[in-house]
Amino acid sequence: MVTYVERMAKPAKTDSGSKRNPGRTRERILSAAFKEFAAKGFAGARVDLIARRAAINKRMLYHYFGNKEKLFRAILHQKIAERRAWGLNLSSDPAERLPFWFKTACADADWIRLLQWEALQSDGEKVIDEDQRRALSAEWLKRLCQRQERGELSAEFDARHLALAMQSLTMFPMAFPQLTRFIMGQTVDDLKFQRAHAAFLKKFAAAFSPTNAQPVKIHFAK
Amino acid sequence: MVTYVERMAKPAKTDSGSKRNPGRTRERILSAAFKEFAAKGFAGARVDLIARRAAINKRMLYHYFGNKEKLFRAILHQKIAERRAWGLNLSSDPAERLPFWFKTACADADWIRLLQWEALQSDGEKVIDEDQRRALSAEWLKRLCQRQERGELSAEFDARHLALAMQSLTMFPMAFPQLTRFIMGQTVDDLKFQRAHAAFLKKFAAAFSPTNAQPVKIHFAK
Repeated sequence: MVTYVERMAKPAKTDSGSKRNPGRTRERILSAAFKEFAAKGFAGARVDLIARRAAINKRMLYHYFGNKEKLFRAILHQKIAERRAWGLNLSSDPAERLPFWFKTACADADWIRLLQWEALQSDGEKVIDEDQRRALSAEWLKRLCQRQERGELSAEFDARHLALAMQSLTMFPMAFPQLTRFIMGQTVDDLKFQRAHAAFLKKFAAAFSPTNAQPVKIHFAK
Repeated sequence: MVTYVERMAKPAKTDSGSKRNPGRTRERILSAAFKEFAAKGFAGARVDLIARRAAINKRMLYHYFGNKEKLFRAILHQKIAERRAWGLNLSSDPAERLPFWFKTACADADWIRLLQWEALQSDGEKVIDEDQRRALSAEWLKRLCQRQERGELSAEFDARHLALAMQSLTMFPMAFPQLTRFIMGQTVDDLKFQRAHAAFLKKFAAAFSPTNAQPVKIHFAK
C-alpha cells in the first residue's frame, strides 16, 4: 500500500514525454509553484505564472502534474513528508522539540503563509487532502500518548490540547510577524530574536513535562 | 492630549452634512467596512462594496471617513480600544486571562482574519498605525513587568517572550481553524472544543505563574 506520505516521491505521470532530466524539471515546477501558492494561496495562484517561473510551457506542466489541485497536493505531500521525517528523528523531549519547530517555522515563512492562505480561503470548508492530513495528526497524537505513557510528557492534560498548544507556540510568531514585532521590538527574521525565543521555548517547555505536574487537589465530599 | 485609543470615539469629520442619526450611520459604515476588510484584507477591500453594504453612497462614506486608510484606522482604533478596556478590567491572573482571550478570539473570527490578511499583505513592511500599536504593546509589557514585580507572573522569563507566548496560545487556534480541526477532530466554532480548550488554558496557565518556577541552577566555577 502506498501511503499518503510515500506518494509524494512519485511523479504524477511517467516522464517519458521529457527528454531532459525529468526529476529536476519536476523539482523546478514544485519550487515555482510553492512560491506562487505562498504568495497568493491556492485560489489566487495562476498556473501560467508558475509555468513561466519554472521556465516550462504550461502543457508540459500539466503533463507533469495534471492540474492546479494536483500540483498543490504534490507540495503538501513534499512539505508534510519532510516535516514528518524530521519529527520522527527528533528527541521526544519538548525542550528540544519546541525550539526545533519554532526555528523550522522561522526558516520556512512560505510554508506558514501557504497554511495561512488556506485558513483564509477555505472558510470552514474541508481543505485539500483533509482526511489524509487528519490521519497524520492522529498518528502524531498517538505518539504523544505513548510519550505520556512513558512519562516523557505531562499526562495531566489531554494530548490533543497539548498538541494544539505546541503548534500555537511554535508557529504563531512567524504567522503574525507584525504582532511579534509590536511585542518584541524586533523583526521575526532577526536572528537575535529567533535565538532568544528558541531559548525561551526550551525553558518554557517545562510546562509540558511531567516533572512539572501540579499536585492533584483532592476534593473531600461535604 | 487625545490618545490613540480615545481618538476612535470621535468621528473623522463633524456630522453637519448628515440629517439622520450620524452616530448610527457611522456605526453602519464601520460594521460594513469591518466585514469587507476581514473578507479581503486592506489591499483587497473595495470602498464601493462597503458603501453598498452600509446602504450609503460613496460620497457620504468619504465625508465620514476621508478615505479607505482612515476607515481602516477607525476600525483598528475601535477594536483595539475595546480590547484594551477589557484587558484593564480583567484579573491579572493568567489562569483567568488566557481562557478569556482565547474565547474572545473565538468570538471574533473576523478580527483574527483581518490581522491575518495584514500579515500576508504587509510582507515585513510597517503596517498601518505601526507606531501607535507598538506603543500599546509597550504599555501592555509595562503592566506585565509590574505583575512580575508583584509576584503575580513568573519572573524567570523576559516579559516580552511571555507576552508572545500568551498571544500564541490564545489566538492560534482561531487563526488556523484547519490545523485545529486536524488535531482536535472538532471545529473551532464547536462550543465543546472552545470550553475544553479554555479549561486546558486555565490549567496550563500555571506555566506563567511564579509558584511554578524551576529552582535556579547554580553553576560553580571550576
